[in-house]
Amino acid sequence: MLSKATQKWIRSLELKKVRQASGCFLAEGHKLVGDLLFKLPCRLLAGTDAWFDRQTNLPETECHRIDESLLQRLSLLRNPQEVLAVFEIPKDTLQPDALTNQLTLALDGIQDPGNLGTIIRIADWFGIEHIVCSNDTVDAFNPKTVQASMGAIGRVRLSYLDLPAFLTNTPLPIFGTFLDGSNLYDQALPQAALVVMGNEGNGISPEIERLVQHKILIPDYPMGTTTAESLNVSVATAIVCAEFRRRLTTSV
Amino acid sequence: MLSKATQKWIRSLELKKVRQASGCFLAEGHKLVGDLLFKLPCRLLAGTDAWFDRQTNLPETECHRIDESLLQRLSLLRNPQEVLAVFEIPKDTLQPDALTNQLTLALDGIQDPGNLGTIIRIADWFGIEHIVCSNDTVDAFNPKTVQASMGAIGRVRLSYLDLPAFLTNTPLPIFGTFLDGSNLYDQALPQAALVVMGNEGNGISPEIERLVQHKILIPDYPMGTTTAESLNVSVATAIVCAEFRRRLTTSV
Repeated sequence: MLSKATQKWIRSLELKKVRQASGCFLAEGHKLVGDLLFKLPCRLLAGTDAWFDRQTNLPETECHRIDESLLQRLSLLRNPQEVLAVFEIPKDTLQPDALTNQLTLALDGIQDPGNLGTIIRIADWFGIEHIVCSNDTVDAFNPKTVQASMGAIGRVRLSYLDLPAFLTNTPLPIFGTFLDGSNLYDQALPQAALVVMGNEGNGISPEIERLVQHKILIPDYPMGTTTAESLNVSVATAIVCAEFRRRLTTSV
Repeated sequence: MLSKATQKWIRSLELKKVRQASGCFLAEGHKLVGDLLFKLPCRLLAGTDAWFDRQTNLPETECHRIDESLLQRLSLLRNPQEVLAVFEIPKDTLQPDALTNQLTLALDGIQDPGNLGTIIRIADWFGIEHIVCSNDTVDAFNPKTVQASMGAIGRVRLSYLDLPAFLTNTPLPIFGTFLDGSNLYDQALPQAALVVMGNEGNGISPEIERLVQHKILIPDYPMGTTTAESLNVSVATAIVCAEFRRRLTTSV
């Protein structure tokens, strides 16, 4: 039996303060829960008989068989998918020295949970192990971010920190996208670097801009003629990450 | 005075059948409405005094000064921004022959309105003038798509059509992304082509797959090792479009 108090707690994991106080977050759906199940400590599983009956191996955790109507009430999704789970938020154990031979993303005030989730998924695809986030970046364990990350949230490590202080102290070259930057394709792109991506509406903040050594632009086409003003931040992140990785693997 | 009937009609533009019957769609916010105002025929403007007082030039159309509370009730956004407008849906006047010297996107069953809006914005950035959509692709004049396109909906032309028939008859080379495709960076990419992007969950449908001559893969990094399963379709669209355009402009 899933007590009323527990039901209420599950729903309240939508709130950052509840996640912070409990150190837990919510993940939903057979695909995502399956991805995270043996990667992160699980505190609770609530799923339909159909879901539980298909599992051959479950971690030791509190399990509740629930019916569709309770699942619907607990779920934050429009179309709940068989199961939801509460996981522990991984401890942030960033060692800045560990980043010195890697490509790392630095997020400066990303606000949209879906964008952050998509960026985490992009990082995962391109083998980027760490994302450092300014303290005003949206919380990565927001349910919308968790869902949009498609399981990448269990693989990519995120650290929230004082971004200007971090960038001031890093030995890595710092790149950032700007509409007045230089053509991405004309730049030397090192294997290890920090790439800063800015807020959806305002871009990179002036304080961070001063710390960026390499301002890059994703050229439009035909160059300089587009009436479009910008690209979505997750789209820009993808193009920049793809180009950093392309340089390492091809001679085209 | 904005009549109750008109208020109800504005709200009902959320529904595809109402948009199709009336040939109109809803756009919101000073930025987006400003972008579209002299691009598409406008049927109605409803905005705050603050918005109207800043306008120096308005098209001839039905104008209503409304207060914040009515704006809030009419708006589909969480945070309404001063104005909403009803525009006429541009007529679809695709001439397939016009595509023969261009890069064109073909969407096969894209379902998420936000993804479609982001793809339209990407097309605009990269100078792609046309997007052809399978008839089961989500409607581009859905308010969520319109908002996500950030004004690009007024510049990029969309056509809904029988996609298999269209692809069967096109003289253009057809590219599509597949997880078992060949490395994007190892392929010759022509200036004029059709690039098919598939449904979020299922990818490109078998019927369309048979018509794709060039299966491409966006390589993960290190190649073949990622535990990520895929990229979001709008992200994949961005990387592929960026690469087609890069080939035309650089020798890196």
